[in-house]
Amino acid sequence: MSFVVHNQDPSSKSRFGVLKTGSGEIETPVFMPVCTKAVPKAITSEDLDKMNFNLIVVNAYHLFLRPGHKEIKDFGGLHEFMNWKGNILSDSGGFQVYSLSPSARIHDDGVSFKSFLDGSTNFLSPELSIEIQESISSDIMMIFDDCPKPDSTYSSMLSSIKRTRDWAVRSKKAKKSSNKLFGIVQGGIYDDLRKTSSEQMMEIDFDGYAIGGLGLGEGQEKTYEITEQVCSLLPENKPRYSMGIGKPEDILNSVELGVDIFDCVIPTRNARNGTLYTTKGKINIKNSAFTMSDNPIEEDDYNHPCAKFSLGYIKHLYMTKEIAALQLMTLSNLYFYKQLIESIKKSIKDGKFIAFKKNFLERYQNESN
Amino acid sequence: MSFVVHNQDPSSKSRFGVLKTGSGEIETPVFMPVCTKAVPKAITSEDLDKMNFNLIVVNAYHLFLRPGHKEIKDFGGLHEFMNWKGNILSDSGGFQVYSLSPSARIHDDGVSFKSFLDGSTNFLSPELSIEIQESISSDIMMIFDDCPKPDSTYSSMLSSIKRTRDWAVRSKKAKKSSNKLFGIVQGGIYDDLRKTSSEQMMEIDFDGYAIGGLGLGEGQEKTYEITEQVCSLLPENKPRYSMGIGKPEDILNSVELGVDIFDCVIPTRNARNGTLYTTKGKINIKNSAFTMSDNPIEEDDYNHPCAKFSLGYIKHLYMTKEIAALQLMTLSNLYFYKQLIESIKKSIKDGKFIAFKKNFLERYQNESN
Repeated sequence: MSFVVHNQDPSSKSRFGVLKTGSGEIETPVFMPVCTKAVPKAITSEDLDKMNFNLIVVNAYHLFLRPGHKEIKDFGGLHEFMNWKGNILSDSGGFQVYSLSPSARIHDDGVSFKSFLDGSTNFLSPELSIEIQESISSDIMMIFDDCPKPDSTYSSMLSSIKRTRDWAVRSKKAKKSSNKLFGIVQGGIYDDLRKTSSEQMMEIDFDGYAIGGLGLGEGQEKTYEITEQVCSLLPENKPRYSMGIGKPEDILNSVELGVDIFDCVIPTRNARNGTLYTTKGKINIKNSAFTMSDNPIEEDDYNHPCAKFSLGYIKHLYMTKEIAALQLMTLSNLYFYKQLIESIKKSIKDGKFIAFKKNFLERYQNESN
Repeated sequence: MSFVVHNQDPSSKSRFGVLKTGSGEIETPVFMPVCTKAVPKAITSEDLDKMNFNLIVVNAYHLFLRPGHKEIKDFGGLHEFMNWKGNILSDSGGFQVYSLSPSARIHDDGVSFKSFLDGSTNFLSPELSIEIQESISSDIMMIFDDCPKPDSTYSSMLSSIKRTRDWAVRSKKAKKSSNKLFGIVQGGIYDDLRKTSSEQMMEIDFDGYAIGGLGLGEGQEKTYEITEQVCSLLPENKPRYSMGIGKPEDILNSVELGVDIFDCVIPTRNARNGTLYTTKGKINIKNSAFTMSDNPIEEDDYNHPCAKFSLGYIKHLYMTKEIAALQLMTLSNLYFYKQLIESIKKSIKDGKFIAFKKNFLERYQNESN
């Protein structure tokens, strides 16, 4: 088995596992920094390596448009192109085709869309998505799925999961490599469609399963309801990936429900918007409390990537619109996510996940912060 | 003596020296990365430290407006604020008052100007400039000088150097610390005014002397003519600083004429515009030759800060407007400048500066590049 659950928390569905791929072992739960266009925003892949991340997520749609998957293949693959020795998970581009091309047209064969770069007409199919993902040599590929809007009607969501099932079959059939391939459970906010989609994916049989279409406006309660339902349906011996999730509290709650893999733009995007994640809660660097403050972002943490700089200095850099502010804040937020995940793993191994979660959130959500 | 010339090149005016300040020793010739607002553009002070820079230039005008010199003083000074253990030279703000505030009005007492930040009216005088520079604890301060436009008439330039002389006297008188203070030779393109200004500065007596108003449109030949003239007038036992100079070839030519200290925005600004400096010459990353190129910026230099990345990857990051491109290219250009300066110092110590310069330029200016 390429995925082994080593520890199952006694009081929750959380588990510690190891997933083996061609590029090495991935401990789960794991958070993947988002490297859509083959680089993390505002920092370098070298920075991720220094922070001991060993799994990133990239995007087939973006790399197909620029620099081109054939070009990356000729270069020797994405690991070589990015000089990234860790693991790579590639999203299939299904979501991006819809979200970035308002004029995308869905056919049974695939999706035609206009490039957001030059307006040229392109066509993405399950077969091409797998070709792209294999060309760049990602370690974990995603099926090309149909990603309807979150407010779709029941009947259109029903058609959508049928299409996703067909495309999942075609994605698997198109795969020529030994790279892993994950299915994606869709179905929107409809419990029975989520159930059907889960069963369809399991029937096709994948190396892992993702929950798609979450965090798109369905509301937090619904997110957890779907997560709990789908996790309970999915097999124990395969990794589960909650796409695009999430905030620190979302990760904790999802781990509790049995999710193993996460990715989210929040730590990097929010860094650029002035938000820092700290163990004492979220802070906004623009807050007057930090003007010329000589406190560090995280007290007494000398391994913190910004340990040498004060909040007051980082605020100065942010207010003067210096690029260094974006770098430092991005490093800080990704470090926070990495530490969170490391603590989660340890707590599961120690059989103390629930206690850890409670303590962490008490400090993180302290009203006085 | 706080400045000692250890080696004088036999075939040129170039010299290797050491300048001692409160923050340590500075070997000359030296290139100062520009940290106008207390940070280098696109990278951090930590990056400069890793590249073994130990002298940076900051700007009194910018730090006065934001975050404020009193605020920096309360923080413990600029070294503390930036967490920079190396040396700091601060420009007085004279140049910035004129270049950034078109409505600046010159009085004998000082200059009134509108803040480029909020339009508020401010007043900068020699006394206040020194107060700012002492508040931030810079190791080397510059006098507050009058910076007329390069195309000023003889008579207005004559009035200007008189004012600069008066302000130089007042700057020196205002100094309360043991920080070093450099005079600035002005006089535009007029040889006799440059001579007069040099003599005035030497008469007041400073720890070092700068040549101001260069590289502002006077033409390259004139730049060198003035540099040669002023260097021949200035004392041998004081460091000479050519403000805002320059391109790699300008540095080589100026060192040959006896200049010791340089600063220039070219390596950092041009990095952001897509230009990389290499030992084989300047290249533009947008050039089609670098599309998916797997060559590094500098062949066989494993200490290069971008040694792990190919030109093709850096071009991809630049074309996709990723911040990482600006960081990597800035690091690369500053590394190039640092290596150039290190080679210059070595060649002077070896008595081989002229041969080094010839070899360097032959490779750097190779027509085939």
